[in-house]
Amino acid sequence: MTSRALIPWSDIAIPAGLPVEVWDATGAPPNDVDGVEFYVLPYDSGSEPAKLIARLPSLRFAQSLSAGVDTLLPLMPTGVRLANGRGLHDLSVAEHALALIHAAQRDLPRWIRQQASGSWEREHTRSLADSRVLLVGHGSIGKAIERQLLAAEAVVVPVASTARPGAHGIAELPELLPEADIVVLILPDTEATRGIIGAAELAALPEDALVVNVGRGTAIDTDALLKEVSTGRIRAALDVVDPEPLPRDHPLWTMSGVIITPHIAGGSASFYPRAKRLVEEQLRRFAAGEDLLNLVTAV
Amino acid sequence: MTSRALIPWSDIAIPAGLPVEVWDATGAPPNDVDGVEFYVLPYDSGSEPAKLIARLPSLRFAQSLSAGVDTLLPLMPTGVRLANGRGLHDLSVAEHALALIHAAQRDLPRWIRQQASGSWEREHTRSLADSRVLLVGHGSIGKAIERQLLAAEAVVVPVASTARPGAHGIAELPELLPEADIVVLILPDTEATRGIIGAAELAALPEDALVVNVGRGTAIDTDALLKEVSTGRIRAALDVVDPEPLPRDHPLWTMSGVIITPHIAGGSASFYPRAKRLVEEQLRRFAAGEDLLNLVTAV
Repeated sequence: MTSRALIPWSDIAIPAGLPVEVWDATGAPPNDVDGVEFYVLPYDSGSEPAKLIARLPSLRFAQSLSAGVDTLLPLMPTGVRLANGRGLHDLSVAEHALALIHAAQRDLPRWIRQQASGSWEREHTRSLADSRVLLVGHGSIGKAIERQLLAAEAVVVPVASTARPGAHGIAELPELLPEADIVVLILPDTEATRGIIGAAELAALPEDALVVNVGRGTAIDTDALLKEVSTGRIRAALDVVDPEPLPRDHPLWTMSGVIITPHIAGGSASFYPRAKRLVEEQLRRFAAGEDLLNLVTAV
Repeated sequence: MTSRALIPWSDIAIPAGLPVEVWDATGAPPNDVDGVEFYVLPYDSGSEPAKLIARLPSLRFAQSLSAGVDTLLPLMPTGVRLANGRGLHDLSVAEHALALIHAAQRDLPRWIRQQASGSWEREHTRSLADSRVLLVGHGSIGKAIERQLLAAEAVVVPVASTARPGAHGIAELPELLPEADIVVLILPDTEATRGIIGAAELAALPEDALVVNVGRGTAIDTDALLKEVSTGRIRAALDVVDPEPLPRDHPLWTMSGVIITPHIAGGSASFYPRAKRLVEEQLRRFAAGEDLLNLVTAV
Protein backbone atom coordinates (compact mmCIF):
# COMPACT_ATOMS: atom_id res chain seq x y z
CA MET A 1 0.00 0.00 0.00
CA THR A 2 1.41 3.41 -0.88
CA SER A 3 2.23 5.43 2.21
CA ARG A 4 0.31 8.67 2.69
CA ALA A 5 2.55 9.99 5.50
CA LEU A 6 6.32 10.03 6.02
CA ILE A 7 7.38 10.46 9.65
CA PRO A 8 10.70 10.25 11.53
CA TRP A 9 9.75 7.80 14.31
CA SER A 10 8.14 4.38 14.48
CA ASP A 11 7.18 4.61 18.17
CA ILE A 12 4.18 6.90 17.98
CA ALA A 13 0.43 6.32 17.70
CA ILE A 14 -0.74 6.12 14.08
CA PRO A 15 -4.43 6.52 13.18
CA ALA A 16 -6.01 3.19 12.15
CA GLY A 17 -5.93 2.68 8.40
CA LEU A 18 -3.35 5.38 7.68
CA PRO A 19 -0.37 3.91 5.83
CA VAL A 20 2.86 5.57 6.99
CA GLU A 21 6.52 5.17 6.21
CA VAL A 22 9.37 6.00 8.62
CA TRP A 23 12.49 7.92 7.63
CA ASP A 24 14.80 9.46 10.23
CA ALA A 25 17.37 10.85 7.77
CA THR A 26 20.08 8.42 8.84
CA GLY A 27 19.94 6.51 5.52
CA ALA A 28 18.59 7.27 2.04
CA PRO A 29 14.92 8.30 1.80
CA PRO A 30 12.42 5.51 0.98
CA ASN A 31 12.01 4.69 -2.72
CA ASP A 32 8.26 4.90 -3.00
CA VAL A 33 7.23 8.34 -1.78
CA ASP A 34 4.84 9.18 -4.62
CA GLY A 35 1.79 8.92 -2.38
CA VAL A 36 3.14 10.94 0.55
CA GLU A 37 0.75 13.79 1.37
CA PHE A 38 2.00 14.51 4.90
CA TYR A 39 5.74 14.78 5.56
CA VAL A 40 7.34 15.35 8.96
CA LEU A 41 10.92 16.49 8.38
CA PRO A 42 13.48 14.75 10.64
CA TYR A 43 14.75 17.29 13.17
CA ASP A 44 18.23 18.82 13.13
CA SER A 45 19.45 16.41 10.42
CA GLY A 46 21.29 18.58 7.91
CA SER A 47 19.97 19.52 4.46
CA GLU A 48 18.61 16.17 3.20
CA PRO A 49 15.13 16.42 4.80
CA ALA A 50 14.44 19.76 3.07
CA LYS A 51 15.71 18.48 -0.28
CA LEU A 52 13.18 15.67 -0.22
CA ILE A 53 10.25 18.12 -0.38
CA ALA A 54 10.75 18.65 -4.14
CA ARG A 55 10.52 14.88 -4.71
CA LEU A 56 7.07 14.39 -3.14
CA PRO A 57 4.52 14.87 -5.95
CA SER A 58 1.45 14.28 -3.74
CA LEU A 59 2.64 16.50 -0.85
CA ARG A 60 -0.02 18.64 0.82
CA PHE A 61 1.45 19.26 4.30
CA ALA A 62 5.04 19.62 5.47
CA GLN A 63 5.63 19.56 9.23
CA SER A 64 8.84 21.11 10.55
CA LEU A 65 9.86 20.38 14.14
CA SER A 66 11.75 23.69 14.35
CA ALA A 67 10.17 26.90 15.60
CA GLY A 68 11.86 28.97 12.87
CA VAL A 69 11.02 27.90 9.29
CA ASP A 70 12.42 30.85 7.32
CA THR A 71 14.73 28.64 5.28
CA LEU A 72 11.96 26.13 4.44
CA LEU A 73 9.35 28.61 3.25
CA PRO A 74 10.98 29.30 -0.15
CA LEU A 75 11.13 25.53 -0.80
CA MET A 76 7.36 24.99 -0.51
CA PRO A 77 5.71 24.06 -3.82
CA THR A 78 2.49 25.94 -4.61
CA GLY A 79 -0.41 24.52 -2.66
CA VAL A 80 1.76 22.79 -0.02
CA ARG A 81 1.17 24.07 3.50
CA LEU A 82 3.90 24.26 6.11
CA ALA A 83 3.42 23.74 9.87
CA ASN A 84 6.13 24.66 12.35
CA GLY A 85 7.31 23.26 15.69
CA ARG A 86 6.28 26.28 17.71
CA GLY A 87 6.69 25.66 21.45
CA LEU A 88 8.35 22.24 21.18
CA HIS A 89 11.75 23.61 22.14
CA ASP A 90 10.73 26.22 24.66
CA LEU A 91 11.38 24.19 27.74
CA SER A 92 14.61 22.70 26.40
CA VAL A 93 15.99 26.15 25.54
CA ALA A 94 14.81 27.64 28.83
CA GLU A 95 16.44 24.81 30.74
CA HIS A 96 19.72 25.25 28.92
CA ALA A 97 19.66 28.97 29.73
CA LEU A 98 19.36 28.04 33.41
CA ALA A 99 22.17 25.48 33.02
CA LEU A 100 24.44 28.14 31.53
CA ILE A 101 23.56 30.73 34.18
CA HIS A 102 24.15 28.29 37.04
CA ALA A 103 27.41 27.06 35.47
CA ALA A 104 28.71 30.62 35.18
CA GLN A 105 27.55 31.81 38.61
CA ARG A 106 28.71 28.72 40.48
CA ASP A 107 32.07 28.44 38.63
CA LEU A 108 31.44 24.94 37.24
CA PRO A 109 34.26 25.15 34.68
CA ARG A 110 36.69 25.68 37.55
CA TRP A 111 35.42 22.70 39.55
CA ILE A 112 35.46 20.47 36.48
CA ARG A 113 39.08 21.43 35.81
CA GLN A 114 39.97 20.89 39.48
CA GLN A 115 38.25 17.50 39.38
CA ALA A 116 40.61 16.37 36.62
CA SER A 117 43.57 16.98 38.93
CA GLY A 118 41.93 15.73 42.14
CA SER A 119 42.09 19.14 43.82
CA TRP A 120 39.85 19.95 46.80
CA GLU A 121 40.67 23.68 46.75
CA ARG A 122 37.57 25.59 47.92
CA GLU A 123 36.29 29.09 47.29
CA HIS A 124 32.94 30.81 47.63
CA THR A 125 31.18 31.59 44.36
CA ARG A 126 28.72 34.05 42.93
CA SER A 127 25.05 33.24 43.21
CA LEU A 128 21.98 33.42 41.01
CA ALA A 129 19.70 34.25 43.95
CA ASP A 130 19.29 38.01 44.43
CA SER A 131 20.86 38.65 40.99
CA ARG A 132 19.09 41.13 38.73
CA VAL A 133 18.41 39.36 35.43
CA LEU A 134 17.48 41.26 32.27
CA LEU A 135 15.44 38.91 30.10
CA VAL A 136 15.64 40.28 26.55
CA GLY A 137 12.91 38.44 24.68
CA HIS A 138 9.68 37.74 26.55
CA GLY A 139 7.92 35.17 24.38
CA SER A 140 7.17 31.62 25.51
CA ILE A 141 10.85 30.73 26.05
CA GLY A 142 11.49 33.95 27.96
CA LYS A 143 8.48 33.28 30.16
CA ALA A 144 9.66 29.71 30.88
CA ILE A 145 13.06 31.11 31.87
CA GLU A 146 11.36 33.75 34.01
CA ARG A 147 9.42 31.14 36.01
CA GLN A 148 12.63 29.24 36.79
CA LEU A 149 14.55 32.40 37.68
CA LEU A 150 11.81 33.58 40.03
CA ALA A 151 11.79 30.17 41.74
CA ALA A 152 15.57 30.65 42.21
CA GLU A 153 14.82 34.02 43.90
CA ALA A 154 16.46 36.12 41.20
CA VAL A 155 15.04 39.53 40.37
CA VAL A 156 13.69 39.35 36.81
CA VAL A 157 13.37 42.37 34.50
CA PRO A 158 11.57 41.32 31.28
CA VAL A 159 12.25 43.24 28.08
CA ALA A 160 10.05 42.81 24.99
CA SER A 161 10.41 44.42 21.56
CA THR A 162 8.07 47.19 22.64
CA ALA A 163 7.05 48.20 26.16
CA ARG A 164 3.86 46.56 27.43
CA PRO A 165 2.37 45.72 30.81
CA GLY A 166 4.84 43.41 32.55
CA ALA A 167 7.73 44.14 30.19
CA HIS A 168 10.02 47.02 29.34
CA GLY A 169 10.60 47.92 25.70
CA ILE A 170 13.90 47.21 24.01
CA ALA A 171 14.36 50.97 23.54
CA GLU A 172 14.88 51.16 27.32
CA LEU A 173 17.99 48.95 27.20
CA PRO A 174 20.43 51.86 27.70
CA GLU A 175 18.85 52.62 31.08
CA LEU A 176 18.42 48.96 32.07
CA LEU A 177 21.86 47.55 31.22
CA PRO A 178 23.87 49.41 33.92
CA GLU A 179 21.72 47.77 36.63
CA ALA A 180 21.90 44.20 35.29
CA ASP A 181 23.93 41.42 36.89
CA ILE A 182 22.89 39.01 34.14
CA VAL A 183 21.50 39.64 30.64
CA VAL A 184 19.77 36.73 28.89
CA LEU A 185 19.18 37.08 25.14
CA ILE A 186 16.37 35.03 23.58
CA LEU A 187 15.97 36.83 20.26
CA PRO A 188 15.32 35.52 16.74
CA ASP A 189 17.61 36.56 13.89
CA THR A 190 15.92 39.55 12.26
CA GLU A 191 17.11 42.86 10.90
CA ALA A 192 15.96 44.51 14.12
CA THR A 193 17.87 42.16 16.43
CA ARG A 194 21.15 41.82 14.54
CA GLY A 195 23.99 43.37 16.56
CA ILE A 196 21.54 44.71 19.14
CA ILE A 197 24.19 44.02 21.80
CA GLY A 198 27.24 45.89 20.50
CA ALA A 199 30.18 47.77 21.99
CA ALA A 200 28.03 50.50 23.59
CA GLU A 201 25.60 48.04 25.19
CA LEU A 202 28.40 45.83 26.53
CA ALA A 203 30.23 48.88 27.89
CA ALA A 204 27.03 49.89 29.71
CA LEU A 205 27.02 46.67 31.71
CA PRO A 206 28.52 46.75 35.20
CA GLU A 207 31.80 45.01 36.05
CA ASP A 208 31.46 41.21 36.28
CA ALA A 209 28.07 41.11 34.50
CA LEU A 210 27.19 37.88 32.71
CA VAL A 211 25.83 37.85 29.13
CA VAL A 212 23.89 34.69 28.23
CA ASN A 213 22.73 33.96 24.66
CA VAL A 214 20.33 31.14 23.81
CA GLY A 215 18.60 32.90 20.90
CA ARG A 216 20.64 33.60 17.80
CA GLY A 217 24.35 34.43 17.71
CA THR A 218 23.84 37.47 15.51
CA ALA A 219 22.23 39.42 18.37
CA ILE A 220 25.73 40.06 19.77
CA ASP A 221 28.60 41.81 17.99
CA THR A 222 31.18 39.07 18.49
CA ASP A 223 34.21 41.36 18.13
CA ALA A 224 32.84 43.79 20.69
CA LEU A 225 32.12 40.90 23.08
CA LEU A 226 35.59 39.48 22.56
CA LYS A 227 37.09 42.82 23.50
CA GLU A 228 35.09 43.10 26.73
CA VAL A 229 35.63 39.50 27.89
CA SER A 230 39.34 39.63 27.07
CA THR A 231 39.85 42.24 29.79
CA GLY A 232 37.87 40.13 32.25
CA ARG A 233 35.43 43.01 32.78
CA ILE A 234 32.36 40.94 31.86
CA ARG A 235 31.59 37.24 31.43
CA ALA A 236 29.61 35.29 28.83
CA ALA A 237 27.78 31.95 28.53
CA LEU A 238 26.79 31.28 24.93
CA ASP A 239 24.90 28.49 23.22
CA VAL A 240 24.79 30.48 19.99
CA VAL A 241 27.57 32.54 18.43
CA ASP A 242 28.29 34.40 15.24
CA PRO A 243 29.64 32.75 13.15
CA GLU A 244 28.47 29.16 13.62
CA PRO A 245 30.22 26.83 13.88
CA LEU A 246 32.75 28.96 15.72
CA PRO A 247 36.09 28.33 13.91
CA ARG A 248 38.43 26.07 15.85
CA ASP A 249 41.05 28.81 16.21
CA HIS A 250 38.62 31.57 17.25
CA PRO A 251 39.95 33.39 20.36
CA LEU A 252 36.51 33.31 22.03
CA TRP A 253 36.89 29.57 22.74
CA THR A 254 39.67 30.02 25.28
CA MET A 255 38.74 33.30 26.97
CA SER A 256 38.49 32.89 30.72
CA GLY A 257 35.02 33.78 31.95
CA VAL A 258 33.42 32.43 28.76
CA ILE A 259 31.37 29.23 28.51
CA ILE A 260 30.40 27.99 25.04
CA THR A 261 28.05 25.13 24.13
CA PRO A 262 27.59 24.25 20.43
CA HIS A 263 23.98 25.37 19.75
CA ILE A 264 22.36 22.49 21.58
CA ALA A 265 19.84 24.32 23.78
CA GLY A 266 16.79 23.24 21.80
CA GLY A 267 17.50 19.57 21.27
CA SER A 268 17.45 17.95 24.71
CA ALA A 269 15.38 14.94 25.74
CA SER A 270 12.47 17.17 26.74
CA PHE A 271 11.92 18.00 23.07
CA TYR A 272 11.11 14.50 21.80
CA PRO A 273 8.04 13.65 23.89
CA ARG A 274 6.56 17.04 22.97
CA ALA A 275 7.42 16.62 19.27
CA LYS A 276 5.91 13.15 19.20
CA ARG A 277 2.72 14.33 20.87
CA LEU A 278 2.39 17.10 18.26
CA VAL A 279 2.96 14.70 15.36
CA GLU A 280 0.45 12.20 16.77
CA GLU A 281 -2.12 14.98 16.97
CA GLN A 282 -1.29 16.21 13.46
CA LEU A 283 -1.62 12.69 12.04
CA ARG A 284 -4.97 12.28 13.75
CA ARG A 285 -6.15 15.58 12.29
CA PHE A 286 -4.75 14.73 8.87
CA ALA A 287 -6.48 11.32 8.82
CA ALA A 288 -9.75 12.89 10.00
CA GLY A 289 -9.57 15.68 7.44
CA GLU A 290 -9.38 18.34 10.17
CA ASP A 291 -7.28 21.52 10.09
CA LEU A 292 -3.70 21.00 11.22
CA LEU A 293 -2.12 22.95 14.09
CA ASN A 294 0.76 25.43 13.70
CA LEU A 295 0.20 26.16 10.00
CA VAL A 296 2.37 29.08 8.94
CA THR A 297 1.30 29.35 5.28
CA ALA A 298 -2.10 30.11 3.79
CA VAL A 299 -3.64 27.78 1.16
CA MET B 1 36.34 51.62 75.07
CA THR B 2 36.19 47.88 75.56
CA SER B 3 34.25 46.17 72.77
CA ARG B 4 31.13 44.29 73.79
CA ALA B 5 30.68 42.51 70.46
CA LEU B 6 33.11 40.82 68.08
CA ILE B 7 31.80 40.47 64.51
CA PRO B 8 33.32 39.38 61.17
CA TRP B 9 32.32 42.36 58.98
CA SER B 10 32.63 46.13 59.21
CA ASP B 11 29.94 46.91 56.63
CA ILE B 12 26.80 46.23 58.66
CA ALA B 13 24.51 48.40 60.76
CA ILE B 14 25.65 48.61 64.40
CA PRO B 15 23.28 49.83 67.14
CA ALA B 16 24.21 53.32 68.35
CA GLY B 17 26.45 53.22 71.41
CA LEU B 18 27.43 49.55 71.08
CA PRO B 19 31.23 49.22 70.91
CA VAL B 20 32.17 46.44 68.46
CA GLU B 21 35.41 45.00 67.16
CA VAL B 22 35.82 43.33 63.75
CA TRP B 23 37.71 40.07 63.21
CA ASP B 24 37.31 38.03 60.03
CA ALA B 25 39.79 35.28 60.96
CA THR B 26 42.33 36.31 58.33
CA GLY B 27 44.82 37.58 60.95
CA ALA B 28 45.28 37.04 64.68
CA PRO B 29 42.30 37.78 66.95
CA PRO B 30 42.19 41.25 68.56
CA ASN B 31 44.20 41.63 71.79
CA ASP B 32 41.56 43.12 74.01
CA VAL B 33 38.60 40.76 73.98
CA ASP B 34 37.96 40.71 77.70
CA GLY B 35 34.70 42.66 77.36
CA VAL B 36 33.24 40.69 74.45
CA GLU B 37 29.77 39.43 75.38
CA PHE B 38 28.51 38.70 71.85
CA TYR B 39 30.76 36.84 69.40
CA VAL B 40 29.87 36.10 65.78
CA LEU B 41 32.22 33.38 64.55
CA PRO B 42 33.73 34.06 61.09
CA TYR B 43 32.15 31.59 58.64
CA ASP B 44 33.98 28.62 57.09
CA SER B 45 37.36 29.81 58.40
CA GLY B 46 39.00 26.73 59.85
CA SER B 47 39.39 26.01 63.57
CA GLU B 48 40.62 29.40 64.91
CA PRO B 49 37.17 30.99 65.39
CA ALA B 50 36.01 28.14 67.64
CA LYS B 51 39.27 28.19 69.65
CA LEU B 52 38.70 31.84 70.55
CA ILE B 53 35.55 30.98 72.52
CA ALA B 54 37.60 29.78 75.49
CA ARG B 55 39.46 33.11 75.59
CA LEU B 56 36.41 35.34 76.01
CA PRO B 57 35.79 35.68 79.78
CA SER B 58 32.69 37.91 79.41
CA LEU B 59 31.04 35.85 76.65
CA ARG B 60 27.27 35.44 76.91
CA PHE B 61 26.23 34.70 73.31
CA ALA B 62 28.07 32.91 70.47
CA GLN B 63 26.55 33.23 67.01
CA SER B 64 27.48 30.59 64.44
CA LEU B 65 26.71 31.24 60.78
CA SER B 66 26.43 27.51 60.07
CA ALA B 67 23.18 25.60 60.26
CA GLY B 68 24.83 22.64 61.99
CA VAL B 69 26.58 23.45 65.29
CA ASP B 70 27.26 19.95 66.63
CA THR B 71 31.01 20.54 66.85
CA LEU B 72 30.58 23.89 68.66
CA LEU B 73 28.18 22.73 71.35
CA PRO B 74 30.81 20.91 73.45
CA LEU B 75 32.99 24.06 73.41
CA MET B 76 30.37 26.29 75.06
CA PRO B 77 31.31 27.39 78.58
CA THR B 78 28.55 27.10 81.15
CA GLY B 79 26.08 29.94 80.80
CA VAL B 80 27.08 30.86 77.25
CA ARG B 81 24.23 30.50 74.77
CA LEU B 82 24.78 29.47 71.18
CA ALA B 83 22.72 30.67 68.18
CA ASN B 84 22.96 28.96 64.79
CA GLY B 85 22.74 30.12 61.17
CA ARG B 86 19.54 28.22 60.40
CA GLY B 87 18.20 29.09 56.95
CA LEU B 88 21.10 31.31 55.86
CA HIS B 89 22.45 28.67 53.48
CA ASP B 90 19.20 27.19 52.22
CA LEU B 91 19.04 29.11 48.99
CA SER B 92 22.73 28.74 48.28
CA VAL B 93 22.59 24.97 48.76
CA ALA B 94 19.37 24.66 46.77
CA GLU B 95 20.86 26.66 43.94
CA HIS B 96 23.98 24.50 43.87
CA ALA B 97 21.80 21.39 43.72
CA LEU B 98 20.12 22.84 40.62
CA ALA B 99 23.52 23.75 39.15
CA LEU B 100 24.72 20.16 39.63
CA ILE B 101 21.53 18.65 38.19
CA HIS B 102 21.61 20.92 35.12
CA ALA B 103 25.34 20.29 34.62
CA ALA B 104 24.81 16.53 34.69
CA GLN B 105 21.65 16.48 32.55
CA ARG B 106 22.95 18.92 29.93
CA ASP B 107 26.47 17.37 29.73
CA LEU B 108 28.32 20.53 30.77
CA PRO B 109 31.61 18.70 31.52
CA ARG B 110 31.64 17.51 27.91
CA TRP B 111 31.06 20.99 26.45
CA ILE B 112 33.69 22.50 28.73
CA ARG B 113 36.21 19.90 27.57
CA GLN B 114 35.23 20.48 23.93
CA GLN B 115 35.60 24.22 24.43
CA ALA B 116 39.24 23.75 25.41
CA SER B 117 39.91 22.16 22.02
CA GLY B 118 37.65 24.45 19.96
CA SER B 119 35.34 21.61 18.93
CA TRP B 120 31.79 22.34 17.66
CA GLU B 121 30.70 18.68 17.80
CA ARG B 122 26.98 18.60 18.65
CA GLU B 123 24.76 16.06 20.33
CA HIS B 124 21.37 16.14 22.00
CA THR B 125 21.42 15.80 25.76
CA ARG B 126 19.26 14.57 28.58
CA SER B 127 16.83 17.00 30.11
CA LEU B 128 15.63 17.96 33.57
CA ALA B 129 12.09 18.67 32.37
CA ASP B 130 9.82 15.62 32.70
CA SER B 131 12.43 13.88 34.89
CA ARG B 132 11.19 12.20 38.03
CA VAL B 133 13.20 13.61 40.94
CA LEU B 134 13.26 11.94 44.35
CA LEU B 135 13.99 14.64 46.92
CA VAL B 136 15.32 12.86 50.01
CA GLY B 137 15.15 15.48 52.75
CA HIS B 138 12.17 17.83 52.74
CA GLY B 139 13.18 20.60 55.12
CA SER B 140 13.69 24.20 54.06
CA ILE B 141 16.50 23.37 51.59
CA GLY B 142 14.50 20.53 50.08
CA LYS B 143 11.48 22.79 49.66
CA ALA B 144 13.61 25.48 47.97
CA ILE B 145 14.93 22.83 45.57
CA GLU B 146 11.39 21.58 45.00
CA ARG B 147 10.15 25.04 43.94
CA GLN B 148 12.94 25.33 41.38
CA LEU B 149 12.43 21.79 40.06
CA LEU B 150 8.70 22.35 39.64
CA ALA B 151 9.37 25.58 37.72
CA ALA B 152 11.64 23.50 35.47
CA GLU B 153 8.68 21.11 34.89
CA ALA B 154 10.29 18.15 36.60
CA VAL B 155 8.14 15.68 38.51
CA VAL B 156 9.07 15.98 42.20
CA VAL B 157 8.64 13.15 44.73
CA PRO B 158 9.47 14.46 48.24
CA VAL B 159 10.73 12.02 50.86
CA ALA B 160 10.91 12.97 54.56
CA SER B 161 12.20 10.95 57.49
CA THR B 162 8.67 9.73 58.16
CA ALA B 163 5.65 9.80 55.84
CA ARG B 164 3.45 12.87 56.17
CA PRO B 165 1.02 14.77 53.97
CA GLY B 166 2.97 15.88 50.90
CA ALA B 167 5.96 13.61 51.52
CA HIS B 168 6.71 9.90 51.47
CA GLY B 169 8.60 8.35 54.36
CA ILE B 170 12.18 7.22 54.01
CA ALA B 171 11.01 3.65 54.67
CA GLU B 172 9.37 3.76 51.23
CA LEU B 173 12.71 4.27 49.44
CA PRO B 174 12.89 0.66 48.16
CA GLU B 175 9.66 1.18 46.20
CA LEU B 176 10.50 4.72 45.09
CA LEU B 177 14.10 4.27 43.86
CA PRO B 178 13.32 2.07 40.81
CA GLU B 179 11.12 4.87 39.38
CA ALA B 180 13.57 7.75 39.94
CA ASP B 181 15.51 9.47 37.15
CA ILE B 182 17.28 11.69 39.69
CA VAL B 183 17.78 11.30 43.47
CA VAL B 184 18.75 14.40 45.43
CA LEU B 185 20.09 13.85 48.96
CA ILE B 186 19.80 16.72 51.45
CA LEU B 187 20.38 14.88 54.71
CA PRO B 188 22.31 15.82 57.85
CA ASP B 189 24.96 13.47 59.22
CA THR B 190 23.20 11.40 61.88
CA GLU B 191 23.24 7.77 62.88
CA ALA B 192 20.00 7.28 60.95
CA THR B 193 21.27 8.78 57.70
CA ARG B 194 24.78 7.31 57.57
CA GLY B 195 25.08 4.94 54.61
CA ILE B 196 21.37 5.26 53.86
CA ILE B 197 22.25 5.00 50.15
CA GLY B 198 24.26 1.78 49.95
CA ALA B 199 24.76 -1.01 47.44
CA ALA B 200 21.13 -2.18 47.57
CA GLU B 201 19.68 1.30 47.11
CA LEU B 202 22.03 2.14 44.24
CA ALA B 203 21.26 -1.19 42.58
CA ALA B 204 17.54 -0.38 42.82
CA LEU B 205 17.98 2.75 40.68
CA PRO B 206 17.23 2.45 36.97
CA GLU B 207 19.98 2.59 34.34
CA ASP B 208 21.37 6.12 33.79
CA ALA B 209 19.86 7.52 37.02
CA LEU B 210 21.64 10.51 38.56
CA VAL B 211 22.51 10.67 42.28
CA VAL B 212 23.01 14.21 43.61
CA ASN B 213 24.34 14.89 47.12
CA VAL B 214 24.33 18.36 48.70
CA GLY B 215 23.75 17.21 52.28
CA ARG B 216 26.52 15.22 53.96
CA GLY B 217 28.85 12.79 52.23
CA THR B 218 28.23 10.05 54.77
CA ALA B 219 24.69 9.46 53.43
CA ILE B 220 26.22 7.49 50.54
CA ASP B 221 28.41 4.39 50.84
CA THR B 222 31.30 5.69 48.70
CA ASP B 223 32.62 2.24 47.78
CA ALA B 224 29.19 1.09 46.63
CA LEU B 225 28.77 4.28 44.59
CA LEU B 226 32.20 3.86 43.05
CA LYS B 227 31.27 0.36 41.95
CA GLU B 228 28.03 1.49 40.27
CA VAL B 229 29.48 4.56 38.52
CA SER B 230 32.54 2.63 37.34
CA THR B 231 30.31 0.47 35.12
CA GLY B 232 28.57 3.58 33.76
CA ARG B 233 25.21 2.24 34.96
CA ILE B 234 24.41 5.32 37.02
CA ARG B 235 25.77 8.87 37.29
CA ALA B 236 26.56 11.14 40.24
CA ALA B 237 26.93 14.86 40.98
CA LEU B 238 28.36 15.43 44.43
CA ASP B 239 29.17 18.51 46.49
CA VAL B 240 29.84 16.36 49.53
CA VAL B 241 31.69 13.06 49.72
CA ASP B 242 33.01 10.66 52.31
CA PRO B 243 35.83 11.19 53.16
CA GLU B 244 36.38 14.95 52.87
CA PRO B 245 38.58 16.22 51.41
CA LEU B 246 38.49 13.44 48.86
CA PRO B 247 42.12 12.22 48.60
CA ARG B 248 43.87 13.38 45.45
CA ASP B 249 44.32 9.82 44.17
CA HIS B 250 40.76 8.66 44.92
CA PRO B 251 39.29 6.89 41.86
CA LEU B 252 35.97 8.78 42.18
CA TRP B 253 37.61 11.97 40.89
CA THR B 254 38.09 10.66 37.36
CA MET B 255 35.05 8.44 36.85
CA SER B 256 33.13 9.43 33.77
CA GLY B 257 29.58 10.40 34.62
CA VAL B 258 30.69 11.89 37.95
CA ILE B 259 30.80 15.61 38.79
CA ILE B 260 32.45 16.66 42.05
CA THR B 261 32.53 20.12 43.64
CA PRO B 262 34.51 20.60 46.89
CA HIS B 263 31.73 21.19 49.47
CA ILE B 264 30.94 24.72 48.35
CA ALA B 265 27.13 24.56 48.02
CA GLY B 266 26.43 26.64 51.12
CA GLY B 267 28.88 29.46 50.69
CA SER B 268 27.83 31.37 47.58
CA ALA B 269 27.19 35.11 47.37
CA SER B 270 23.54 34.62 48.33
CA PHE B 271 24.66 33.63 51.84
CA TYR B 272 26.33 36.90 52.84
CA PRO B 273 23.43 39.35 52.57
CA ARG B 274 21.27 36.93 54.56
CA ALA B 275 24.00 36.37 57.16
CA LYS B 276 24.55 40.12 57.56
CA ARG B 277 20.84 40.77 57.98
CA LEU B 278 20.70 38.14 60.72
CA VAL B 279 23.71 39.58 62.55
CA GLU B 280 22.30 43.12 62.33
CA GLU B 281 19.06 41.90 63.88
CA GLN B 282 20.92 39.94 66.56
CA LEU B 283 23.07 42.98 67.47
CA ARG B 284 19.94 45.09 67.68
CA ARG B 285 18.33 42.54 70.00
CA PHE B 286 21.51 42.17 72.06
CA ALA B 287 21.87 45.94 72.52
CA ALA B 288 18.18 46.24 73.43
CA GLY B 289 18.36 43.33 75.86
CA GLU B 290 15.82 41.30 73.84
CA ASP B 291 15.89 37.55 73.25
CA LEU B 292 18.16 36.51 70.37
CA LEU B 293 16.92 34.49 67.39
CA ASN B 294 18.04 30.93 66.56
CA LEU B 295 19.21 30.05 70.08
CA VAL B 296 20.00 26.35 70.27
CA THR B 297 20.99 26.08 73.92
CA ALA B 298 18.99 26.75 77.02
CA VAL B 299 20.30 29.11 79.74
